Amino acid sequence: MVKVAILGYGTVGSGVAQVLFENKDAITHSVGEEVSVKYILDVRDFDHSPYGGTFVKDFSVIEEDDEVSIVVETIGGATVAHNFTQRALRARKHVVTSNKELVACHGLELTRLAQEKGVCYLFEASVGGGIPIIRPLTVCLAANRVEEICGILNGTTNYILTRMIGAGLSFEAALKEAQENGYAERDPSADILGYDACRKICILADLAFGKNVDPQLVPTEGITGITLADVDYADGAGKKIKLLGRAVRQEDGRVCAYVAPHLVDASHPIAGVDDVFNAVFVRGNAVGDVMFYGRGAGKLPTASAVVADVMDIARSKGLRGAMTWEQGDAALVCGTDELASRFYVRVQASADTLRSQVGEMKLLARSGATPGEAAGITEQVMTEGQLRAKLSGIAVLSLIRVLN
Amino acid sequence: MVKVAILGYGTVGSGVAQVLFENKDAITHSVGEEVSVKYILDVRDFDHSPYGGTFVKDFSVIEEDDEVSIVVETIGGATVAHNFTQRALRARKHVVTSNKELVACHGLELTRLAQEKGVCYLFEASVGGGIPIIRPLTVCLAANRVEEICGILNGTTNYILTRMIGAGLSFEAALKEAQENGYAERDPSADILGYDACRKICILADLAFGKNVDPQLVPTEGITGITLADVDYADGAGKKIKLLGRAVRQEDGRVCAYVAPHLVDASHPIAGVDDVFNAVFVRGNAVGDVMFYGRGAGKLPTASAVVADVMDIARSKGLRGAMTWEQGDAALVCGTDELASRFYVRVQASADTLRSQVGEMKLLARSGATPGEAAGITEQVMTEGQLRAKLSGIAVLSLIRVLN
Repeated sequence: MVKVAILGYGTVGSGVAQVLFENKDAITHSVGEEVSVKYILDVRDFDHSPYGGTFVKDFSVIEEDDEVSIVVETIGGATVAHNFTQRALRARKHVVTSNKELVACHGLELTRLAQEKGVCYLFEASVGGGIPIIRPLTVCLAANRVEEICGILNGTTNYILTRMIGAGLSFEAALKEAQENGYAERDPSADILGYDACRKICILADLAFGKNVDPQLVPTEGITGITLADVDYADGAGKKIKLLGRAVRQEDGRVCAYVAPHLVDASHPIAGVDDVFNAVFVRGNAVGDVMFYGRGAGKLPTASAVVADVMDIARSKGLRGAMTWEQGDAALVCGTDELASRFYVRVQASADTLRSQVGEMKLLARSGATPGEAAGITEQVMTEGQLRAKLSGIAVLSLIRVLN
Repeated sequence: MVKVAILGYGTVGSGVAQVLFENKDAITHSVGEEVSVKYILDVRDFDHSPYGGTFVKDFSVIEEDDEVSIVVETIGGATVAHNFTQRALRARKHVVTSNKELVACHGLELTRLAQEKGVCYLFEASVGGGIPIIRPLTVCLAANRVEEICGILNGTTNYILTRMIGAGLSFEAALKEAQENGYAERDPSADILGYDACRKICILADLAFGKNVDPQLVPTEGITGITLADVDYADGAGKKIKLLGRAVRQEDGRVCAYVAPHLVDASHPIAGVDDVFNAVFVRGNAVGDVMFYGRGAGKLPTASAVVADVMDIARSKGLRGAMTWEQGDAALVCGTDELASRFYVRVQASADTLRSQVGEMKLLARSGATPGEAAGITEQVMTEGQLRAKLSGIAVLSLIRVLN
């Protein structure tokens, strides 16, 4: 019998208990022995969990119980969760988590601590919720040199954009609807400002490129500046606006990692990823383009990934090799300054002025355009700096990168 | 140093040698030691491989060389490949393959032989080429009860259908174009009759449901009966025709597995999978819907998956648990007789006759329709037998299942 402790009985933690309970027979058959919840740690009072486990408030009960071999950390944040994860690993317990903030900010330290202690620190659920992506990237695509990762990594913002595009809702109205449906938190800033997507692209970049990418060095732009005017112009160009996290290998070995809205052509597989769904697109030098798609959040999808990590540890008796990466530095990560692409621009100026300053453009139209406004997509590939220099003296209303 | 022997220096075998050579540094770094090709077995004469390896014609050289720990079987077919795989496993060598026919027909026997000998028999490349699917399904989604797997599993037929839909080519013209582009073989029957997709859905069903599904018990229909008339009618209904392999868990525990063309709604993520791309859609009771997308064939994509299996064995020193399933029987697999759904029908009869016999239908139109022809989609869900009974006395030109 494998005994597990769950830290934090919130959405994901209770989902983990539920999946372990409801799929118990299949899990026991697959692992070869039963996986049961011995403790659930939470500061709040619960009478009991219908799915097993004794509630405790003191982590040292778990830390000191040698019967507990796997700790599931679903507390979130990088303070208490960080401390408990360190203590669990030092006590030579395997740790499985869905905590993207902790992995993005302290993953290198924690994977190394796990390696030193001969245990596993696994985090399949930290990116893309239930979508298998960490293991496919590190095992199934291991024979590739990864050239690029690009993903819709945040369900809240994808839901808002989908509603803006499909139902013509304003950003504010779509956000309100997302909150009413439980897809956005009361304080939605981590989602709509792109911070959540930033953490996830950093984790993927760490693994794909083998060096630590510090979230603080990654330029991050959310969707608060996207207007229905931009959505309409994009539609006229056969494109959709999507918030993407991207990490692109540069020829000199550096990694260009950033989060920003993009215009994505309707024929690109990522353009069809709507609502709260996520997708991660990987380009490898042997496999070409592959994409992973599914629910990027939610109680049971996230629990599915957490329990899979638990089962992998139980089945392999923890002998699964350690997964870590090298120390990075500021020189590894380059911003978007040098990343040339085509751009969509919307300006307060005439189409003639726009064209004469920027050069060849595909001009765009929309019904009900504000007088004196012009919009288009550059024909030339250029950096944002080059474009902004050309736009000197023109009032720029929007400037969005076009995914090549 | 891990020494590998490659059996068969065709498209995939030479791709494996190439990927091992070109990505050598990254592979060595990831595995912790070098992986090199010691032998290449082929009946044909080659002067040398630019990627290393000594050509041999006698399998016993490999079989008797204790230095060779991993055999890559890329011969194809289920005769010579079967024999060499048995001999390699009996000699306690790990075997990695891309051979879907062998895995679909003899996978149970070979995985059990591998288990008995304490070695691995891995076949990530046998389904979906380079797309990670076997490992995500068996590891990352292990906490789920799989409800359904559904996929575009054959690139040749997907290319033909894409060209019929997008360019209005006839089946014959699209097949000819596929052959000219190297996407279809000179004898394309295994692809266009659905046999290739059948083998792949059987492998996925074996793993997802844990019992052996015999390809011979799986109803298999290809795309030779699809006409441009059907493509046009489907388009009018906002749907695309796709050849799908499906395996659906029934409430009584049986598995309904089959291969057939379907009408897929344009909003379904699988509808956007075009050209030679493949996609596998999995529905789990915890994770919900996930999809894996990429190139389902080709030299380097397939080699990417083969080399990933080789690396997984090398990294884990072969201690990766055995992957096998239970004996199935004829009672496990039910045909499509009981699988109710909506259907598209095209008949030589009036729309009134069609509707009066079948019941409520969404009638479809197309420009240039043959006089006296009618087509529609049933509003009611029913089995094919029920529908055919209702159509008694009417000349049925096409009958295609609609994916729910």
